[in-house]
Amino acid sequence: MSCGEDTGTHTHKWVYAFGDGRADGHAGMKELLGGKGANLAEMSRLGLPVPPGFTISTEVCTWFYRHDRRYPDTLVAEVEAALGAIEQSLGARFGDRDLPLLVSVRSGARASMPGMMDTVLNLGINDATVEGLIRRSGDPRFAYDSYRRFLQMYGNVVLNLDHHLFEDILEAYKHGRGVTLDTELGVDDWHAVVGRYQSMITDRLGTPFPQDPRAQLWGAIGAVFGSWMNQRAITYRRLHDIPEDWGTAVTVQAMVFGNMGEDCATGVAFTRSPATGENVFYGEYLVNAQGEDVVAGIRTPQSLTVAGKGDGAGDKPAMEETMPAVYRELAEIRCRLERHYRDMQDIEFTVQQGRLFILQTRNGKRTAAAALKIAVDLAAEGVVTQEEALGRLEPTALDQLLHPTLDPKATKTVIGRGLPASPGASAGRIVFTADVAEKSAERGEQVILCRVETSPEDIHGMHAAAGILTTRGGMTSHAAVVARGMGRTCVVGASGLRIDHRAGVLMAGAHHLAEGDVITLDGSSGEVMLGEVPTIAPALTGDFATLMGWADHARRLVVRTNAETPQDAATARKFGAEGIGLCRTEHMFFDADRIVAVREMIIADTPEERRAALAKIAPMQTRDFADLFRIMAGFPVTIRLLDPPLHEFLPHSEAEIAEVADAAGVDPQCVHQRAIQLAEANPMLGHRGCRLGITFPEIYETQARAIFRAAAEVDRETGATVMPEIMIPLAATRRELEVLKALIDRVAAEEREATGRTVPYLVGTMIELPRAALRAAELAEVAEFFSFGTNDLTQTTFGISRDDSASFLPDYQRLGIVARDPFVTLDTDGVGELLSIAVARGRAVRPDLKIGICGEHGGDPASIRFCESIGLDYVSCSPFRVPIARLAAAQAVQDGTGDRREDR
Amino acid sequence: MSCGEDTGTHTHKWVYAFGDGRADGHAGMKELLGGKGANLAEMSRLGLPVPPGFTISTEVCTWFYRHDRRYPDTLVAEVEAALGAIEQSLGARFGDRDLPLLVSVRSGARASMPGMMDTVLNLGINDATVEGLIRRSGDPRFAYDSYRRFLQMYGNVVLNLDHHLFEDILEAYKHGRGVTLDTELGVDDWHAVVGRYQSMITDRLGTPFPQDPRAQLWGAIGAVFGSWMNQRAITYRRLHDIPEDWGTAVTVQAMVFGNMGEDCATGVAFTRSPATGENVFYGEYLVNAQGEDVVAGIRTPQSLTVAGKGDGAGDKPAMEETMPAVYRELAEIRCRLERHYRDMQDIEFTVQQGRLFILQTRNGKRTAAAALKIAVDLAAEGVVTQEEALGRLEPTALDQLLHPTLDPKATKTVIGRGLPASPGASAGRIVFTADVAEKSAERGEQVILCRVETSPEDIHGMHAAAGILTTRGGMTSHAAVVARGMGRTCVVGASGLRIDHRAGVLMAGAHHLAEGDVITLDGSSGEVMLGEVPTIAPALTGDFATLMGWADHARRLVVRTNAETPQDAATARKFGAEGIGLCRTEHMFFDADRIVAVREMIIADTPEERRAALAKIAPMQTRDFADLFRIMAGFPVTIRLLDPPLHEFLPHSEAEIAEVADAAGVDPQCVHQRAIQLAEANPMLGHRGCRLGITFPEIYETQARAIFRAAAEVDRETGATVMPEIMIPLAATRRELEVLKALIDRVAAEEREATGRTVPYLVGTMIELPRAALRAAELAEVAEFFSFGTNDLTQTTFGISRDDSASFLPDYQRLGIVARDPFVTLDTDGVGELLSIAVARGRAVRPDLKIGICGEHGGDPASIRFCESIGLDYVSCSPFRVPIARLAAAQAVQDGTGDRREDR
Repeated sequence: MSCGEDTGTHTHKWVYAFGDGRADGHAGMKELLGGKGANLAEMSRLGLPVPPGFTISTEVCTWFYRHDRRYPDTLVAEVEAALGAIEQSLGARFGDRDLPLLVSVRSGARASMPGMMDTVLNLGINDATVEGLIRRSGDPRFAYDSYRRFLQMYGNVVLNLDHHLFEDILEAYKHGRGVTLDTELGVDDWHAVVGRYQSMITDRLGTPFPQDPRAQLWGAIGAVFGSWMNQRAITYRRLHDIPEDWGTAVTVQAMVFGNMGEDCATGVAFTRSPATGENVFYGEYLVNAQGEDVVAGIRTPQSLTVAGKGDGAGDKPAMEETMPAVYRELAEIRCRLERHYRDMQDIEFTVQQGRLFILQTRNGKRTAAAALKIAVDLAAEGVVTQEEALGRLEPTALDQLLHPTLDPKATKTVIGRGLPASPGASAGRIVFTADVAEKSAERGEQVILCRVETSPEDIHGMHAAAGILTTRGGMTSHAAVVARGMGRTCVVGASGLRIDHRAGVLMAGAHHLAEGDVITLDGSSGEVMLGEVPTIAPALTGDFATLMGWADHARRLVVRTNAETPQDAATARKFGAEGIGLCRTEHMFFDADRIVAVREMIIADTPEERRAALAKIAPMQTRDFADLFRIMAGFPVTIRLLDPPLHEFLPHSEAEIAEVADAAGVDPQCVHQRAIQLAEANPMLGHRGCRLGITFPEIYETQARAIFRAAAEVDRETGATVMPEIMIPLAATRRELEVLKALIDRVAAEEREATGRTVPYLVGTMIELPRAALRAAELAEVAEFFSFGTNDLTQTTFGISRDDSASFLPDYQRLGIVARDPFVTLDTDGVGELLSIAVARGRAVRPDLKIGICGEHGGDPASIRFCESIGLDYVSCSPFRVPIARLAAAQAVQDGTGDRREDR
Repeated sequence: MSCGEDTGTHTHKWVYAFGDGRADGHAGMKELLGGKGANLAEMSRLGLPVPPGFTISTEVCTWFYRHDRRYPDTLVAEVEAALGAIEQSLGARFGDRDLPLLVSVRSGARASMPGMMDTVLNLGINDATVEGLIRRSGDPRFAYDSYRRFLQMYGNVVLNLDHHLFEDILEAYKHGRGVTLDTELGVDDWHAVVGRYQSMITDRLGTPFPQDPRAQLWGAIGAVFGSWMNQRAITYRRLHDIPEDWGTAVTVQAMVFGNMGEDCATGVAFTRSPATGENVFYGEYLVNAQGEDVVAGIRTPQSLTVAGKGDGAGDKPAMEETMPAVYRELAEIRCRLERHYRDMQDIEFTVQQGRLFILQTRNGKRTAAAALKIAVDLAAEGVVTQEEALGRLEPTALDQLLHPTLDPKATKTVIGRGLPASPGASAGRIVFTADVAEKSAERGEQVILCRVETSPEDIHGMHAAAGILTTRGGMTSHAAVVARGMGRTCVVGASGLRIDHRAGVLMAGAHHLAEGDVITLDGSSGEVMLGEVPTIAPALTGDFATLMGWADHARRLVVRTNAETPQDAATARKFGAEGIGLCRTEHMFFDADRIVAVREMIIADTPEERRAALAKIAPMQTRDFADLFRIMAGFPVTIRLLDPPLHEFLPHSEAEIAEVADAAGVDPQCVHQRAIQLAEANPMLGHRGCRLGITFPEIYETQARAIFRAAAEVDRETGATVMPEIMIPLAATRRELEVLKALIDRVAAEEREATGRTVPYLVGTMIELPRAALRAAELAEVAEFFSFGTNDLTQTTFGISRDDSASFLPDYQRLGIVARDPFVTLDTDGVGELLSIAVARGRAVRPDLKIGICGEHGGDPASIRFCESIGLDYVSCSPFRVPIARLAAAQAVQDGTGDRREDR
């Protein structure tokens, strides 16, 4: 319904009442009533005992601004009528000195909007009604405290008087009385402060604080509408593309009090256990208390149910015992709410003189384990469909279920904090080098590898360690990526810690820890703790398998894994991976038994020398690939040919140099010189990817041959279908692919000839450069598949090195320059447009082009949603992310437009 | 005209004759006659004495392939008729043993196409006609040598016999005769070789070599048409998008001989001097000689003109004296050709028994100085318009005119070769460090700074040196970019040389040069030479100014310069720059008198410390800007705020560290630690550009303040209009610009308040990241101008670091993966699309958005053409490139679509 210029003169409905089990509105009327108003109407319509009230619609806001800040003629009468209904329902009266009605006034836009007036509570108090409040509550201190709070809140948000004006008065008063805490002030003190507040208001504004509750009410309504056009709200709307003509609604609701005697109470209830998900009624309450008393924790709350007694809540009487009738009503509401909202609810309630009021209900927060159980149970109970159940789980929460977690009951001494790079909780002895990590692990010790940062040469140590801690690097630093891939606990960029690995010291403030000292890492929170903190093992219950089955049924995207070791590949299969989307061959090159040969290859000056070194590596590569093909039999395996800058493999220490020189039969000085020659200013943009294949074709030739030999071997051995997909990294031009595909095809033909076996294979490319995305049509003329390498594509599109971003990305997030780390969640605006371009142009040329993603984003739910929306065929992620991706892919199908989940 | 299926049965013209001052075709018929056929027809039609001949049209080729490799019925008759006309013209007959006619047969596609049959010469020789040839030439050895050459050529290209078959026979024969050189063989030897060739052909093919000249002719015609469909030609067409149905033509032309006696001659003529451009007839000839004798240089040729005698050509009689009638005819043709082709011509001619034949005419190659003079003269003579004259100059050739060049007469010993990074020729003493360079220069010595590569800390040494030589890096390495900016001679990436700067040795093969030894660099060829090679100083004649004036009149693009020093800015003004498009403030930071303060700023741990250091720099920056504003009064000056990774400024040596620690009053160990902390893995993608401004706002604030103070100062002092354009580098998001523009606007307001002067200014951004180009609409909401930083944009779009590209770009160019170094000439397909996108999206939001380019490409003609085509407002380039850019911008307007020049 739109609000025309002339509706003010017609009999138009401006005010929507709710309460007493009825309402003019419902949950679907957010546009007219705002989020809060629509929800209150919905609860009331459900028959819940919501404190009565009414909502002035957003149309009034629009009318207000179109008519020089006046209200429609009929508004006052409608408000009066609605107010009358509240008074009748509660038997109280606005401004009555015996039974005064107090109300709250809240703004309510369609979406919550910072910068707008939020809330005025206790409106209706004045010098007369405060007496009624005293009489009703029997607590004069509470009444005057409420009065001065109301003055302060109203003075600030409605009368625009600065906070400090009130604070100064209070401080001066306390100073005069020689006290420092508010709690030391009594009723007379608050009475006095109320007086001083009123004087100050009169001084400042030239008119006294309005004693007339109706004047207070219209003041608050005007303040809400006025705040729609204040500078902060305008800026916020501009930044978030919220149209100005949406307007705000104003909701006025009766205040109810849980502190008016022993027949009053206030509490919180969950319809199921938020910790375990069990279908039990769970909650706490306090007799004769305000809501904030529950939160403040000054008094220990009591259990709602007899069954819940003793479980943290002490064994004081349950509400089930003290207020059986109210309890029964609440228990009945519990069922009704779950049926209606079809999810576990978190309910706030107040009992005012024996009468139950529901203040709020919302989907309850829960642990990952509870979320899983509740979703599966609700589907089993027929409350939600399987599809809906899938939507109830935050995919990333699954991570908690796959790794050990800290025992929540344990005490812990946090000595540092970094980024939660790879989940799980692990304790172990501090070691500072990969070699020591490996040796300690061989002795059966749990160790935590502590480094400033890690490099590919630390891989064996990372594998040996229970956890990895670095003081530098971000969520996609080497340590983070590798640790997630291996399922190792990892905290990175703990910049408050300092590691002096020569001295063998980890400094954390006053703590100086040495090698062998024990610490615990929480990879889900980023915390570093002293000593061993107990952990809880993961229990993959039947619910997990059930939900995953539903997800597999629902999703369209295939989920593959990024893996190069047999262990990782096997783990990923266990987690449901349908093939390998990225096997990084260079990761196979760092093993101790081959790094010397690899280094020999790199320092080679001629193709012949290089071939000689490669000949040593070739049989190992063949074995590597054969292992993967066996594990992934029947599924495709995408093998990326050598990608990283060669200098990553260079020997550094004198000993390493000597070893390589010895193996290659050259002078160590030569090796040293060559290492210097191969050093690069910006290795990420250097001599890597297919540039290696172009300049040193013998490397790719050896790798291709290893692939075809391994495939033929596994085929011969097992008869299983082996489907290698050979991926050329970092291509920017069609010609690179032409040259390298010709090489691969030649090797394939030679091996077909030699083995007599035809291995079906594809040759494709990674799209990881902006130019590749733009020229996708050309590339697709040669490439049979695309795989988006979104790590590199993000680096080049943003011009940000993920290894170096830690020095400014935190500031960027703080200032709202980037909402989320673009290396974690795909930047759909920039990088995403390149993906869309590449998909469209690639498929225009080759309609059956297989397209996937194998960057870190392949395991991020928001990014997976985007992948679904642009029609990719598969996502590939690290093994421990596979279940997350399966669920996220299922949700992405349901989301359709891909927008819904963001609203939750 | 298209060739239908049935035209073979109609009377259709297939053959186009030329000769005797007439022709069936003309230059515009390339599609039908191929390039060669059309040109010969044109010359003939002009009345030039072209050896007569005919062209079989491309339609025959098409017909041939549509009819199972048969010819149209009427073709034989048409060829016979055309052959008859040739015979009549020359009084010779095909196959006649007294006066034999010999012909050449050539393929002729629209564009020259490698992989196709090229040429068969001397067709018509057989055992009988060879005798006539002997009689006519009086030179039996020549006749039999021609015969065996014909057999070899025909055998290879028509009969498909491998080269080595002929070579083996010749080698065996020479071995038997005990000689090694062809010149040692006499007439009987060649006669014998002819016999052995014929036997081999008979053995191989089972039939003898065709003695019938008509059989030879049709064999050659068939070979040309057949070669259109050979594999190499097909591949070439595919790579160059040449449609298969274009077909090829076949041109048959009479051979003429300049070696049939003393009334015969052969030579080359230029219509003007190719060295100076002077309007004099210039050329050489040899009496009784073949064309190849002129080329081979065995005999010294004689001058055409009396005036030209003694000028290198010795003082043997000029043709003007020996063959006055022929000379007069040639001199008359000279004028006719220049008038017709409207450019200086390079003419090949032969005199056969007193009769002049013109074999070829084409636009003559010339030096840059000649090109300039000829273009201006031709326009003055009314032969071409000013606009055409502008199109006659290769803009980059102007570079030669602005720098000293090597004396072409000097002898030189080349000891190494690198990339020609910055033109000019300079000799000087070898120095290995910037400090020594500076000290030597202070003593008045010319030095060449030799480094593996340069860094910003070498700037003072580069300034002091006459030339810079590096052994690493590409055309846009630091050394190359800075040297071009300064106008210093520079050769980079001379990878054959080795510099051991500790030992103080430059190794070039066997040469070991020490500090103080003299070398010469040629920055236009990339050569490194031993000792001092004499050079010629540039002379900017009036012609240069004239042509530049025409260019300025014709161009639309504004040309600015990249400059930060007063010297560079003044040079650029002298060369016609209309403002500064890029002032790199960081270049101002390396001066000895401020680097310590800059380093102090960088190692600062807190904003306060940073401000303290900045306070020392601020007055210097203000002076810098004021100097530039004075020089560029009335023109805009774009100042880029600090851009490079901070660690570029870090102190390295102990002495530097101590100096900084001292200035900052901290422990050297601190400085050392901070330096390690600031090191980055990929500095190009690191903490730089506006990321510095975001994290350390005090830096940009100081710079902005210096700009406004300097502008106000110059305004007050001179009343000149100062137009600063403040450029925010490396933005990827709108929000970065919002935050930093707010900062700049605040400083502007504060300074306006303080100085009472309003400085008009713009705030804009560099578009140098793919994301910035894609999100241009958002950025343009904040930015008032865009400047394309195509160096960085190329780096990120391609994912190639220009500092590291030398290890693979040469291979890439060799394999045709990139046609041109994308850091020199804009990659229009990839990077160019991003530019187009940014222009369109930016202007959609802000129609008056000022857009320019300030990467190295701003001085590259092909890139400037692209800038014109997408509607940029200006280009900005280094000072010495400004004239090039002015000319290129003028040509770009004329080109319209921007394609024409590529065809030249």
